[in-house]
Amino acid sequence: MRFDGRESQQLRPVHIETDYLKHPEGSVLISIGDTKVICSASIEDRVPHFMRGTGKGWITAEYSMLPRATEQRNIRESSKGKVTGRTMEIQRLIGRALRAVVNLEAIGERTVWIDCDVIQADGGTRTASITGAYVAMAQALDKLQKEKRLKSHPVTDFLAATSVGILESGQVVVDLNYVEDSAAHVDMNVVMTGSGEFVELQGTGEEATFSYNQLQELLKGAQEGIMELFEFQKQALGESLAITIANARKG
Amino acid sequence: MRFDGRESQQLRPVHIETDYLKHPEGSVLISIGDTKVICSASIEDRVPHFMRGTGKGWITAEYSMLPRATEQRNIRESSKGKVTGRTMEIQRLIGRALRAVVNLEAIGERTVWIDCDVIQADGGTRTASITGAYVAMAQALDKLQKEKRLKSHPVTDFLAATSVGILESGQVVVDLNYVEDSAAHVDMNVVMTGSGEFVELQGTGEEATFSYNQLQELLKGAQEGIMELFEFQKQALGESLAITIANARKG
Amino acid sequence: MRFDGRESQQLRPVHIETDYLKHPEGSVLISIGDTKVICSASIEDRVPHFMRGTGKGWITAEYSMLPRATEQRNIRESSKGKVTGRTMEIQRLIGRALRAVVNLEAIGERTVWIDCDVIQADGGTRTASITGAYVAMAQALDKLQKEKRLKSHPVTDFLAATSVGILESGQVVVDLNYVEDSAAHVDMNVVMTGSGEFVELQGTGEEATFSYNQLQELLKGAQEGIMELFEFQKQALGESLAITIANARKG
Amino acid sequence: MRFDGRESQQLRPVHIETDYLKHPEGSVLISIGDTKVICSASIEDRVPHFMRGTGKGWITAEYSMLPRATEQRNIRESSKGKVTGRTMEIQRLIGRALRAVVNLEAIGERTVWIDCDVIQADGGTRTASITGAYVAMAQALDKLQKEKRLKSHPVTDFLAATSVGILESGQVVVDLNYVEDSAAHVDMNVVMTGSGEFVELQGTGEEATFSYNQLQELLKGAQEGIMELFEFQKQALGESLAITIANARKG
Amino acid sequence: MRFDGRESQQLRPVHIETDYLKHPEGSVLISIGDTKVICSASIEDRVPHFMRGTGKGWITAEYSMLPRATEQRNIRESSKGKVTGRTMEIQRLIGRALRAVVNLEAIGERTVWIDCDVIQADGGTRTASITGAYVAMAQALDKLQKEKRLKSHPVTDFLAATSVGILESGQVVVDLNYVEDSAAHVDMNVVMTGSGEFVELQGTGEEATFSYNQLQELLKGAQEGIMELFEFQKQALGESLAITIANARKG
Amino acid sequence: MRFDGRESQQLRPVHIETDYLKHPEGSVLISIGDTKVICSASIEDRVPHFMRGTGKGWITAEYSMLPRATEQRNIRESSKGKVTGRTMEIQRLIGRALRAVVNLEAIGERTVWIDCDVIQADGGTRTASITGAYVAMAQALDKLQKEKRLKSHPVTDFLAATSVGILESGQVVVDLNYVEDSAAHVDMNVVMTGSGEFVELQGTGEEATFSYNQLQELLKGAQEGIMELFEFQKQALGESLAITIANARKG
Repeated sequence: MRFDGRESQQLRPVHIETDYLKHPEGSVLISIGDTKVICSASIEDRVPHFMRGTGKGWITAEYSMLPRATEQRNIRESSKGKVTGRTMEIQRLIGRALRAVVNLEAIGERTVWIDCDVIQADGGTRTASITGAYVAMAQALDKLQKEKRLKSHPVTDFLAATSVGILESGQVVVDLNYVEDSAAHVDMNVVMTGSGEFVELQGTGEEATFSYNQLQELLKGAQEGIMELFEFQKQALGESLAITIANARKG
Repeated sequence: MRFDGRESQQLRPVHIETDYLKHPEGSVLISIGDTKVICSASIEDRVPHFMRGTGKGWITAEYSMLPRATEQRNIRESSKGKVTGRTMEIQRLIGRALRAVVNLEAIGERTVWIDCDVIQADGGTRTASITGAYVAMAQALDKLQKEKRLKSHPVTDFLAATSVGILESGQVVVDLNYVEDSAAHVDMNVVMTGSGEFVELQGTGEEATFSYNQLQELLKGAQEGIMELFEFQKQALGESLAITIANARKG
Repeated sequence: MRFDGRESQQLRPVHIETDYLKHPEGSVLISIGDTKVICSASIEDRVPHFMRGTGKGWITAEYSMLPRATEQRNIRESSKGKVTGRTMEIQRLIGRALRAVVNLEAIGERTVWIDCDVIQADGGTRTASITGAYVAMAQALDKLQKEKRLKSHPVTDFLAATSVGILESGQVVVDLNYVEDSAAHVDMNVVMTGSGEFVELQGTGEEATFSYNQLQELLKGAQEGIMELFEFQKQALGESLAITIANARKG
Repeated sequence: MRFDGRESQQLRPVHIETDYLKHPEGSVLISIGDTKVICSASIEDRVPHFMRGTGKGWITAEYSMLPRATEQRNIRESSKGKVTGRTMEIQRLIGRALRAVVNLEAIGERTVWIDCDVIQADGGTRTASITGAYVAMAQALDKLQKEKRLKSHPVTDFLAATSVGILESGQVVVDLNYVEDSAAHVDMNVVMTGSGEFVELQGTGEEATFSYNQLQELLKGAQEGIMELFEFQKQALGESLAITIANARKG
Repeated sequence: MRFDGRESQQLRPVHIETDYLKHPEGSVLISIGDTKVICSASIEDRVPHFMRGTGKGWITAEYSMLPRATEQRNIRESSKGKVTGRTMEIQRLIGRALRAVVNLEAIGERTVWIDCDVIQADGGTRTASITGAYVAMAQALDKLQKEKRLKSHPVTDFLAATSVGILESGQVVVDLNYVEDSAAHVDMNVVMTGSGEFVELQGTGEEATFSYNQLQELLKGAQEGIMELFEFQKQALGESLAITIANARKG
Repeated sequence: MRFDGRESQQLRPVHIETDYLKHPEGSVLISIGDTKVICSASIEDRVPHFMRGTGKGWITAEYSMLPRATEQRNIRESSKGKVTGRTMEIQRLIGRALRAVVNLEAIGERTVWIDCDVIQADGGTRTASITGAYVAMAQALDKLQKEKRLKSHPVTDFLAATSVGILESGQVVVDLNYVEDSAAHVDMNVVMTGSGEFVELQGTGEEATFSYNQLQELLKGAQEGIMELFEFQKQALGESLAITIANARKG
């Protein structure tokens, strides 16, 4: 039994509220336990410099935390005048992950801006961001498709992420909250597609290491957790869009 | 009748949800029409450099918008690497306004950090921020007082703010939404105390001017709107704290 | 009687020296008591991005202080690598105020750059900047008009500004110097046109408030002070240009 | 057979030149094929703020490229005024990896600054940096130990890193050069200890994914490559220091 | 005869107005032809970090231009968020030059801040800055000495600077104005003491070179010009202070 | 005899290794005693904004030090977020110097980027940078000429630089190492062409001065040292290119 009463394999309660904001093409408020992230997807009708003339679109992500999303107040990155290395890592991760399940040719020379703003943090903010951002993005692209502005549906598969880790006791657990994460020996973030393929795998032993066998256990835990997350995403997307994506995956 | 069906003097619907976040000492989600702001108040047990050794506390505010709080996505100030002039003006305004109704000696050498994060914008974000931040701050200071860490209750009066303006038609209206604000000839933000005194008055004619008589009309409108806002604040604060403040005002 | 021997309603000595610099299209050295500001107006034959293609011009202002304009030496903003919130507020105020008395269509797609550099500060630098910048701008635009580069004279009215405040004693005074300003309970900056209309009104009670009646007194004081400033401006502009503007106002 | 004639499992030629610079406590020039990195280790007799008073040391890394290390000249990060996200990711990775094989208590309140400056880049600069920096660090700490300034030898194991990837053809290869890396579907960086444990695992499918079975193949390839790198490190460290570390690992 | 009617060896008209500003310990407005610089000297009762505990003082200089000091308006360095290389070069030059004629031990652990603000530029702004700053500094230090806060008079000699150059025609001229400077093949700035010694010599051929013989001619011209400048400085300093310095030089 | 056993006029050992890097059009590793600099020259087929449409090329230089090039580790300029004044001065000097011996019309609208990265510093890094960068640039431009992309050979003369100084003892020495440089009373950097003309002369007395006679001695020392450096450059360039440049000089 874990600190908060969960089983090793048990996710915290998951809620995904869609159409959370008025202006963005897609937006959700995702909460996984006490971690809450507003994810929005905005469509811009042009691409960054390095993509111009390719006929393909781009997906880019920004991530931020409210100063008091955390136990101790953090200084705003705008006040510091620069974005921290941690934020940059997370932003790059979210963008890369989402691009793996989108047909960039199908969206044409457009940019999908993903904004993940953590309003309350209790561990796992980057994986919650990916899981929520996927839903916001899928809805924004679906809207574009329904407006007949795309040649084909650009979302090619489901995508979700979770964290797994090895606690001080050696126990392998899924979906670590902040208390667990702070004390964990090994921390791994895993992003997978609905087809069960890996998109990203980032395992880190901070002043610690992990064996080949422990790695296998971590991967198994992550996979089971992510499969559960797909069910929450499908519910949030609605039956019709979920079927469209399921078919795209097979096609 | 206005664009959205309101009377000249009519505020948009106001909701103040308290204890919105887990970590801050005080926090609210205030919505005034489609304008929604998360306001939090954090207590830090030290003061900025210029206040050290004075025995007095300080209140400082930061203001930000989610990139997609608006119709068009805005570039994050953290990405730009600097805070815009508009943001700085608003931050300074919020801080100054709140300091007018707090006995800084009573809070001792502590800083109250106010964070106003606009998650959805439809005009009047700075006045909604002041109105919401007041509630978050009052609750945070009340908690401090209840923990017996203060000599006396530091909140000396109520405080709220609204916008008034003159539309192209010459009509004087209160609580302008974004569409009205964009086209208004004159825009005025007014901050008042529960005693009916002015704290801030900022009237601006962008490529336009206003007469002495128009000014009197604007002030009257603002005063009436703010009196209504006090009722919403009192409800959010709860009867006990509202009475404490009302007594402090008289005392 | 005030600290420096003035009556409540008395301005400090005002001098406006025109054609102060060799290069700018318009330039003045304005001194109001010990406050001295070099104001220059430069014409650029293009407009900022957001005005392109509108056929209209733009007026923008920058404000700065020499490091030793003040009693204590200030760090240069160029050394800090960023402009303070106070500077930004003042710059925006000066630009907005001047735009209220210029027909932006008449100047075509040109930018008027206003530079206000305070070489000595003793209170009221922002209002002195507006009052001086108006003269520099009027002369620069008049030069443009005389060179037959404009369709019509673009200056539509006079414009000046002063500060008013409430001292600790409760006395309402006009044109506060630094010593008065530091101790004042309420500080208000007022910008008015030659027609007696308000352009900007910024009243602030720093850890204090003011009543409706006090506001009326402040407005009256400001109006009388500004009327006097118009006389100094007219003298600086010369009879011919002063008449041109007076006629534009009526027209 | 690969583009440059290598077998799937074959590393490029590896050279580690120790004592490359005069001033640092430890320094190497590592070349892996055409990738060349100067790695230096500097000892500072204090720790960053967050480690003060803990009695423990810290290891931090910085990474940079000469502008013309690459085929196209890159703009210097000092000219841009900010460090890119890619650089930050790599710096954080190098620091974390090295900390996994050092007993931070044994070095006392000291910081080891690792500088990895890529003078020529042909793929795998981050893994070459880790592999070279380990040697520079081990020599610097050994010097400290020989000067009798440490309680015990702080290096607890060997550490090296390599890249593995899946080419467009589906072939799994080790130690990708720039041409292979640019076209690879999956790219994975692996950091391991001499004991065969994982320290870091970062696998990424850029617009692609990888299966569980492919992952196993990648891990196997990485492990074999890293075992070879340990032999080059031992040769560079010299027999005596290599034995000391081998014993520390067992102890 | 030169462009503006001067002889090769002839300086432009020189004026040094002392006590130009109210607040600084020393201040002048120096004009050399149309070049006008406000120079101020401020005394701070502490030294930069690298001088603490040495018992010696420090002299540091900052240099800036008003945006419209020049024919074309320049962007403010505070708006750019950074100081240009040209400004840094000039600042370092002014500081170094002044330190050569001050006994830093005699001023104790104090910093003299020199601010040179060019309000109108027509060539030679850096040499005018040095020549004017010397007077402001000497007066500030003399004031300190008269207040009996120093052990001995810290100014050890006179100091002035001028520019010399070789025009396209091959003519060697002194004190180049902007038109001459722009077209000159060789530009040299020379700083000398009252004793006829060199402090700084910076000769530059921009896309051109100069011979040993031309160098000798340039040095002779510079020396004669600087001797004249000393007379203007002595007049500005007043007889008493000029004699004190002349004696210090001999002593 | 000097600190390190050299005669007053004796240079430290000089080595210039050409084709040091794989990617740049020209690159050298120059070592002068323990000072080691990687100099590369990169050709870009466009010019900066201010040169567009002139038909002429441009040469610009960047200079940097590895953090541990020096005895004490320096903070990276990329981490500080800005380039120091010293770096800017050196960069500007290198660029200006090289432009003096290149026919900018002959290179057409191209930019030559010079990068000087000091990997080990022991005094004289800026003069070593110029001397090494000249060779890298000459080789890069020669390659361009051999590819028949230029109308004529653009290098018009040789160019090298050295430092001279006056030690505390009064001894005039050439090519100062770090220990000498730190204690020298006068420090002068001299850049000359193969024709014996001066390009740059920067003499500085830090808290000291120098006489006319000392200046003559310094110039003589510099000239002799530079003549020796030309021989090392010719050897590095190879006979054929050295003859081409020698002819260009005469032509």
